[in-house]
Amino acid sequence: MTKLRVDIWSDIACPWCYVGKARFDKAVQGLSGKVDVEVRHRSFELDPHRDPADVAPVVPMIAKKYGISTAQAQANEYKLGELAQLEGLEYQAEGRDYGNTFDLHRVLHLASERGLEAPVWQAFYAANFADSDSIFARERVIEVAAAAGLDRGEVAAVLDDPEAYREAVRADEAEAAALGATGVPFFVIDEKYGVSGAQPTELFAEILEKAWGEKKPALTTIDGIDGGEACGPDGCPIQP
Amino acid sequence: MTKLRVDIWSDIACPWCYVGKARFDKAVQGLSGKVDVEVRHRSFELDPHRDPADVAPVVPMIAKKYGISTAQAQANEYKLGELAQLEGLEYQAEGRDYGNTFDLHRVLHLASERGLEAPVWQAFYAANFADSDSIFARERVIEVAAAAGLDRGEVAAVLDDPEAYREAVRADEAEAAALGATGVPFFVIDEKYGVSGAQPTELFAEILEKAWGEKKPALTTIDGIDGGEACGPDGCPIQP
Repeated sequence: MTKLRVDIWSDIACPWCYVGKARFDKAVQGLSGKVDVEVRHRSFELDPHRDPADVAPVVPMIAKKYGISTAQAQANEYKLGELAQLEGLEYQAEGRDYGNTFDLHRVLHLASERGLEAPVWQAFYAANFADSDSIFARERVIEVAAAAGLDRGEVAAVLDDPEAYREAVRADEAEAAALGATGVPFFVIDEKYGVSGAQPTELFAEILEKAWGEKKPALTTIDGIDGGEACGPDGCPIQP
Repeated sequence: MTKLRVDIWSDIACPWCYVGKARFDKAVQGLSGKVDVEVRHRSFELDPHRDPADVAPVVPMIAKKYGISTAQAQANEYKLGELAQLEGLEYQAEGRDYGNTFDLHRVLHLASERGLEAPVWQAFYAANFADSDSIFARERVIEVAAAAGLDRGEVAAVLDDPEAYREAVRADEAEAAALGATGVPFFVIDEKYGVSGAQPTELFAEILEKAWGEKKPALTTIDGIDGGEACGPDGCPIQP
């Protein structure tokens, strides 16, 4: 009633998610005091079937996967880096690795349960896109998650148990598929409006305001069969 | 997306809330596997200005307050007891006390935070309506809340600090007022339908099914200004 719920499907390995989240966050900040937003991270893997052991520098991987030159793949990274910088984000255009993100999503579900979703999410993005160290290593995941506030032992336990939060990740992905989302970031505002891609801040602001405005109308009142027996300031009347 | 949210404003001192909650719960049980419901307890005090020290047997209190005979007030309690029994609920028609419920609501907010809302809520109802011991005593509140799973020390700390969850209770009450609720129980289904009073199970079931059916339609898709930059199985295209 009081908050506008926004579900954001995304992947830590997705540069448009990193950029789009920053644009969205700016829209929320700009509406501070006017629109009250409650964000929920939802899992989406770009490459769910990738062998977790297969971690590789993103530029040659992209070049090979999509049949473009290494130079073109590197140019794309530079372009993404420029766009990230426009949002005030650091971006290691020559440095990042690419890999399977299933474990990161499982740890993110732990973070959501512990009330630490926002800081861990942001820390994973920064570790993947802005740091030169690869996030695709067990000890690095623990280190980054712990620095963002999670308990080191709890993170290790999740990483060691392949069943931990598996169903939570799969359920998010099934829901994205049911909603017709084929790419990320994918934003759902108030369970009502679907927005695909790293849209401009202004567009996010416009939709948030629109959805907030629509949240206000009065409830539809259901008339009960016998008028509804209730207690109020005048007691608890009993109908004959 | 996956659950139907139901907010229930009620008071532990409200017999129609006790009965109405049981009727509602039966509707939810009857729809098990079909409709997935997430209930949230919301605070509403029947008598917020009552002196917390003023605890008294309900029958003479009601008789005096509403200018009816003690016999009539007692007859009302028997009638409520019969209706409660029809729902499978115990009801001490001759026994219960009446008092200020602010502390019970504050402890219920603690229970919600600890994931123990449902058992504590039910335990408070049972303690007030079915047990001969009065719930309006500090030690009894601690005992009942602890038996329902809360930490004894945490409950005591809430009771000892008049600020603990005060704002949470007041915010619930302000929201009820904004929604036009003047009595309880008051049910809000999916932030959309308002239902007042202890309605029959069949009516609750009907509204839950209706709201659930309406939850399914596809999202409204917002077309972005530049088509939306996103990553998917085919990579992260960059628009020129």
